[in-house]
Amino acid sequence: MIGGGQLARMAHDAGIPLGLRFKLLADTAQDSAAQVVSDVVLGDYRDLETLRAFARGCDVVTFDHEHVPTEHLRALQAEGIAVRPGPDALVNAQDKGVMRARLDSIGVPCPRHRIVSDPADVTAFAAEGKGSSSPEAGDAGGFPVVLKTVRGGYDGKGVWVVSSEAEAEAPFRAGVPVLAEEKVDFVRELAANVVRSPSGQAVAYPVVESVQKDGVCHEVTAPAPGLPADLAAEAQALALRIAGELGITGHLAVELFQTRDGRILVNELAMRPHNSGHWSIDGAVTSQFENHLRAVLDLPLGDPRPRAPWTVMVNVLGGDYPDMYAAFLHCMARDPGLRIHMYGKDVKPGRKVGHVTVFGDDLEDVRERARHAAAYLRGDITE
Amino acid sequence: MIGGGQLARMAHDAGIPLGLRFKLLADTAQDSAAQVVSDVVLGDYRDLETLRAFARGCDVVTFDHEHVPTEHLRALQAEGIAVRPGPDALVNAQDKGVMRARLDSIGVPCPRHRIVSDPADVTAFAAEGKGSSSPEAGDAGGFPVVLKTVRGGYDGKGVWVVSSEAEAEAPFRAGVPVLAEEKVDFVRELAANVVRSPSGQAVAYPVVESVQKDGVCHEVTAPAPGLPADLAAEAQALALRIAGELGITGHLAVELFQTRDGRILVNELAMRPHNSGHWSIDGAVTSQFENHLRAVLDLPLGDPRPRAPWTVMVNVLGGDYPDMYAAFLHCMARDPGLRIHMYGKDVKPGRKVGHVTVFGDDLEDVRERARHAAAYLRGDITE
Repeated sequence: MIGGGQLARMAHDAGIPLGLRFKLLADTAQDSAAQVVSDVVLGDYRDLETLRAFARGCDVVTFDHEHVPTEHLRALQAEGIAVRPGPDALVNAQDKGVMRARLDSIGVPCPRHRIVSDPADVTAFAAEGKGSSSPEAGDAGGFPVVLKTVRGGYDGKGVWVVSSEAEAEAPFRAGVPVLAEEKVDFVRELAANVVRSPSGQAVAYPVVESVQKDGVCHEVTAPAPGLPADLAAEAQALALRIAGELGITGHLAVELFQTRDGRILVNELAMRPHNSGHWSIDGAVTSQFENHLRAVLDLPLGDPRPRAPWTVMVNVLGGDYPDMYAAFLHCMARDPGLRIHMYGKDVKPGRKVGHVTVFGDDLEDVRERARHAAAYLRGDITE
Repeated sequence: MIGGGQLARMAHDAGIPLGLRFKLLADTAQDSAAQVVSDVVLGDYRDLETLRAFARGCDVVTFDHEHVPTEHLRALQAEGIAVRPGPDALVNAQDKGVMRARLDSIGVPCPRHRIVSDPADVTAFAAEGKGSSSPEAGDAGGFPVVLKTVRGGYDGKGVWVVSSEAEAEAPFRAGVPVLAEEKVDFVRELAANVVRSPSGQAVAYPVVESVQKDGVCHEVTAPAPGLPADLAAEAQALALRIAGELGITGHLAVELFQTRDGRILVNELAMRPHNSGHWSIDGAVTSQFENHLRAVLDLPLGDPRPRAPWTVMVNVLGGDYPDMYAAFLHCMARDPGLRIHMYGKDVKPGRKVGHVTVFGDDLEDVRERARHAAAYLRGDITE
């Protein structure tokens, strides 16, 4: 696996029972995954020679992030290395412009969007929405408009919500193409997570509700409370169709907006284990990490069904106190059913340093316990 | 953790989400746990200097087996190293003579037993049981008698069931004291697993039924089917009492005989994660491995309750075919709910190379699926 973050760490954890020999390419020995994996190579994933040397002897190469240059992946693939997901699929998670064009071509409902060339063009884009009859969008047009650099963004980075032409200047400074999207009037965000293997087997996890805070995934509830069965099935079918049409292998997270008028629109795609699937470690028969590994190795996939009526995951972000140990003890003692996942990272304000999961029969109870633990670990509350 | 077997491998897997830095003392880099742990020291656990150097910088030292010499553990402890379980407790799992004497002293029901000096003494021991009024034993006396070397046995090694004085010669050849025990007329074997922390917090897992084959744990059902609630509670209380009286920290497995007349007798003690607790990885809220680590680190313990009405674990033993890959694929494809745990070991006939676990509402279904997978992986069946 290329990338030494918490996704690789949790993937290694899931691979141990499968008897896998897990090899990691990390930036530093202090990386979250590098702390716990035996076979670690340190190197730069942007360097083709490093990638080549790393891939030698691997049955398959997969990823903890989307940042490996597409052309390097094509080079590896051309040399006979199994790269999963492959570059033709992965480019849709690397480049939002490519992704939107591809989803349009297969008729997947997205927010109204187009590549914009400068701030004046953003104003033009905003005006185009006025009186739009586009059934996918349903937007009234005008500002605010969402601007995204097509490459390099994650966790809210590379995304701007602008209310005027003057505010629209910043995104163009990076010299990367900018995608404009209508600001969708959504009720909530959902994620439809599926896993697909090279031989075409696929499984769909229950559709979850995802709550973002400051552009970062904060809380996930599985399954999404009150989601009509037909809309849940539609979201799962849509994710399975995207995985198939784009030839994705491994885990695909389809981040969705549920609109006020009961439709779903695709927000983002991620082709790797995803924060919206962390609940599955404790909450599903087979976790997203295990199924991602099974998929990229073309092993038969495991049952994605939930084990409890409700599972809630809340991210633990770093707060003002660098030492979480006392809080860690308190949370374990207060709630023996709490599932704690720490990533081995130094605490920095706002940094994802872990997550907690609680499952059970009573949604309110489960949610309160997970929220309490995450807030306590962060230091937001002290009782 | 000292010892590089599958118990250490599974403990590392359980420690990753807790954010632990896991350090391993293994015999070779090919050891089951050494394959997956990042911080591995290779060395001989019988050498005090090796142990000393290994323990440097560790918050606590714990074990994957009972074979570290007691005097070395006392030396480490005297130097201020936290050894858990400590030597005074662990000696009861290392020396069956010490264990029986200790359990007698606290009134724990055991099979009739005493140290025997030679084959003639075995015949005398057998005769002593005739007409015995011992309420713990209830044995008719006479042969067969169970003989055990007091140290060094595991998985049926170091245990003989002898039917005559002539057969009783072998155990004395090792020059180790020999313990004689009545052969208990049991209905089945049970295990009461508990975890206790240095501060005295303790949790009890549900009492499980354990089926041995050729002296090796073969199948475990959690909870033990049809076990009367009062007997289950008695077994749990007994295990908690042993853990407390003996000052055990970490996981304690109390292997029990359920007698024909509805009593329980203690067969063996193990002070580490135990085969009879492997079901808890997939079957309990908190696994025995996680709770063992929490206990030895004096962290608050996790909920030991089962997550499904029934969980069945069956060991995967090596069969005649060294390559299990095709069988591995078949089992995953046949049963997406099957939980497979492979230990990274080369397949040798009779060697424990993994285990499978199935959970669910229907005991017959769960048991059939787990048994089928284990038999298929071993190569005993091909359909």
